[in-house]
Amino acid sequence: MKAAAKAGMKKMKWNLVALAMLLGGATIASQAQVVVKHLQPNEKSPIANGVWAGDTLYLSGQLASPVTPADPAKGTEAVYGDTRTQALSALQKIQALLKEQGLDMKDVVKMSVFLAGDPAKGGKLDFPGLQASYTQFFGTADQPNKPARSAFQVAALAAPWALVEIEVIAVRSK
Amino acid sequence: MKAAAKAGMKKMKWNLVALAMLLGGATIASQAQVVVKHLQPNEKSPIANGVWAGDTLYLSGQLASPVTPADPAKGTEAVYGDTRTQALSALQKIQALLKEQGLDMKDVVKMSVFLAGDPAKGGKLDFPGLQASYTQFFGTADQPNKPARSAFQVAALAAPWALVEIEVIAVRSK
Amino acid sequence: MKAAAKAGMKKMKWNLVALAMLLGGATIASQAQVVVKHLQPNEKSPIANGVWAGDTLYLSGQLASPVTPADPAKGTEAVYGDTRTQALSALQKIQALLKEQGLDMKDVVKMSVFLAGDPAKGGKLDFPGLQASYTQFFGTADQPNKPARSAFQVAALAAPWALVEIEVIAVRSK
Repeated sequence: MKAAAKAGMKKMKWNLVALAMLLGGATIASQAQVVVKHLQPNEKSPIANGVWAGDTLYLSGQLASPVTPADPAKGTEAVYGDTRTQALSALQKIQALLKEQGLDMKDVVKMSVFLAGDPAKGGKLDFPGLQASYTQFFGTADQPNKPARSAFQVAALAAPWALVEIEVIAVRSK
Repeated sequence: MKAAAKAGMKKMKWNLVALAMLLGGATIASQAQVVVKHLQPNEKSPIANGVWAGDTLYLSGQLASPVTPADPAKGTEAVYGDTRTQALSALQKIQALLKEQGLDMKDVVKMSVFLAGDPAKGGKLDFPGLQASYTQFFGTADQPNKPARSAFQVAALAAPWALVEIEVIAVRSK
Repeated sequence: MKAAAKAGMKKMKWNLVALAMLLGGATIASQAQVVVKHLQPNEKSPIANGVWAGDTLYLSGQLASPVTPADPAKGTEAVYGDTRTQALSALQKIQALLKEQGLDMKDVVKMSVFLAGDPAKGGKLDFPGLQASYTQFFGTADQPNKPARSAFQVAALAAPWALVEIEVIAVRSK
């Protein structure tokens, strides 16, 4: 074998070693470590809107926004509506948070629904009210994906007016 | 160096480049993307039985199946039993769902247990009843794995007869 | 091309194949399988302290430790304190569990807080009490990370004295 060929072989062997180290390293990194990113745009909020851990996005539980905000001039309080209305609002907030992150309702893999007893229903949970809004987003012709879900009535939510809190885990997928 | 040897070298270098692109691409894909699969065999159900996200399987909260189904001819309602009986049924349903996916109770990494107050216990949660069924599946000689778990009493579950709802996250592991 | 050069080429081709199998195999393994590790040092406990699934650590819900343990000689019961005191204790226990695993509060990506009604607050949840302890660990100058969180009042926790149970998911990150 000639010297030039030998030199070429030797160089290629080093390329192989370098390739093995590079790819081997990348593979080990993907097994052992994950990129975490906190979505906390509101400095005053004690919690994050959500946190990315690799391809998994954990969102904080969402309460409804008011249908009619409080009007201090008139002395009126905010109006939040019934379970159906509040569920719609919470789901719209979740959808907006997902879209900001390049995801949508189809990417929700797990949902937890915490319902407060509705005074207008004798203090019972309004399951049909939840379902009426939920089914606009999941299991439709346009969006057939349905999440794994648990739903139950809690003793109380963090805000006295709140009838629904919805928490989701979404995943960025192929 | 002869022409034939040079051509062989050149071809091999392209192999190296192709290999680097192929493996590099696969490695990046494993960092950035996950395969999601919705288990939703029942078209009428608004939720999935469970959802795979990579190697993580999120199951929906499971309620018990009736011990004795309703009998419209006799006018009798379904019988679901006490907390112990319902917990056993919910855990058996979880085990069946896991087995369909090639997993088993050993693969449960996280469990949430939502207990409704038992009228036969003065409206209190029946924690010993839960434990009696739970310990048949976890921490046994045959199946020593125990999940991380939270358990508490909720105000009410989705079905008026329900005393227990159990939700798990399971992981396909090496 | 000479025989020696041909033999060298052939050997290198096998190196390439071996490399491809090795790295390809490792890459596929990182996509399809995860290492799960159960942290269950207490044989008598029916649940794990936590479970690792890849880089995700699921901890069991933590209740407070007593401020003053029971004293059978004096016939006094354990004292656990109010929501603020119990939240501080539960968070300290979580921090200790995380540190044993090489993590800390900054690595918490998701938190669930289950509050029992405080008899001293007319049976209502003591949200300010929770926040007073929580904000010592999250969103501070030293530790700016804040988790995604849900918090609500349950009907009862597993122990009659318990006012707070806190559950977290933490992630080992780059």
